[in-house]
Amino acid sequence: MDKKQLHIIKIGGNVIDNSESLHHFLEDFTALNGFKILVHGGGKVATQLSEELGIESRLVDGRRITDIDTLRVVTMVYGGLINKNIVAQLQRYGTDAIGLTGADGNFIKTKKRPVKTIDYGFVGDIDDKSVDATNISKLMEAGFVPVFCAITHDGEGQLLNTNADTIASALAVALSGMYETTLVYCFEKKGVLHDINDEESVIREIDPERYEELKKQQIIHSGMLPKLDNAFTAINCGVKAVIIGKSDELSQLQQKQPFGTRLSKAGS
Amino acid sequence: MDKKQLHIIKIGGNVIDNSESLHHFLEDFTALNGFKILVHGGGKVATQLSEELGIESRLVDGRRITDIDTLRVVTMVYGGLINKNIVAQLQRYGTDAIGLTGADGNFIKTKKRPVKTIDYGFVGDIDDKSVDATNISKLMEAGFVPVFCAITHDGEGQLLNTNADTIASALAVALSGMYETTLVYCFEKKGVLHDINDEESVIREIDPERYEELKKQQIIHSGMLPKLDNAFTAINCGVKAVIIGKSDELSQLQQKQPFGTRLSKAGS
Repeated sequence: MDKKQLHIIKIGGNVIDNSESLHHFLEDFTALNGFKILVHGGGKVATQLSEELGIESRLVDGRRITDIDTLRVVTMVYGGLINKNIVAQLQRYGTDAIGLTGADGNFIKTKKRPVKTIDYGFVGDIDDKSVDATNISKLMEAGFVPVFCAITHDGEGQLLNTNADTIASALAVALSGMYETTLVYCFEKKGVLHDINDEESVIREIDPERYEELKKQQIIHSGMLPKLDNAFTAINCGVKAVIIGKSDELSQLQQKQPFGTRLSKAGS
Repeated sequence: MDKKQLHIIKIGGNVIDNSESLHHFLEDFTALNGFKILVHGGGKVATQLSEELGIESRLVDGRRITDIDTLRVVTMVYGGLINKNIVAQLQRYGTDAIGLTGADGNFIKTKKRPVKTIDYGFVGDIDDKSVDATNISKLMEAGFVPVFCAITHDGEGQLLNTNADTIASALAVALSGMYETTLVYCFEKKGVLHDINDEESVIREIDPERYEELKKQQIIHSGMLPKLDNAFTAINCGVKAVIIGKSDELSQLQQKQPFGTRLSKAGS
């Protein structure tokens, strides 16, 4: 029997901070057929709230340290304010969403990052046993659409801040055993660009061979490398395709119009 | 066929504000057999956060006005901080909890309170069509334990602040068609007391006839009257029993020891 289709869509702060973009995206998300999961990042609200409360943001090598006060803020903002407002909007459009952290349903259990030279605080690292795919499937089969924020737990009562990109990727890998899974990363560009200054120069498809060429030609470099490395890891772990595109254009995914950059397995 | 048992337990701020009481309660809640739902109120954290953010608490006749800033605070604190920490603790104890507002799963849809002489702001009033019992049942039958905070939505994208006692009662009434439902209100006393100064003078059972007597004798008066009136309304709408007791003693409910004050139908 063919596996059922599943779309996992990740949106970042740029969509969340722009009310118009967010509504447009949530309408398009609602229009997607089949099983689907939304994963959302944080946006500026957590930083603003931290400032209002006089909580200092500490960054080491560009990565945020999650002390106990910061954890409280992100639990409030990601798990409460942003997540529940997204759910309320999705319900308005007709998506039967349920807003979740990884603690809910024990869906994503992570390990607090060990302290080496730097103590990142209450940050959870995902491993290959983190996601309870069976339990998430139960929720979806009961008719609900999971909406995950970037918070997980350790199973011992401790909530942990966890990167939303990584959550999306781990969900996709774990669920690809049960579903034909497509992972979509929405970011600020229309896809991986051939020419960074030309928004229309989207490279429509990249397989591992093409990826090597593009790296050699220095067309893909710096910040895009870890993103694409992660994407190809997901594909090698069973995810059917990873698409990188702009949230405004999500509807094209369903209309079979070209949408973003599709990464796929060699020869697929 | 006999209906399945369902316990709906409501805890208030006094439990939430006391970490030791809360843990003790969550262990006992986990030990309860059968289907169960937890409904929690707010506690002091929302008031504290409002103060830190310089948001003025406005009360009219003892009732809080929920302006847009206050709604943001309660969404963060009830829907995020408190709800998700309770879920993480329940998971630790082995309860497969999912933390919810009424927006999630479209479970509780309310109407914004109409402005008459007072504008209460973003407050949702429950009516007899508010609760989607079928959808909540789907979630429970899939193996999850719902944990509701005191936030609902209007179905048009607006979150609304809603009294937790009323949510618990509305859930109990709506679900009593499908389950043999017991509603438990946990408060700071061991039950309805014969003598307010004697914590051990718990009245173990009150049916409508006894209730009339106790009112005549002025043993039940003032603040307890609306609580008990609501409880008897729930019973008249199909809820099997309403119990008013202390959260510390919840385990006695399962052990068939006397627990709190049980309100029941005439002759039941």
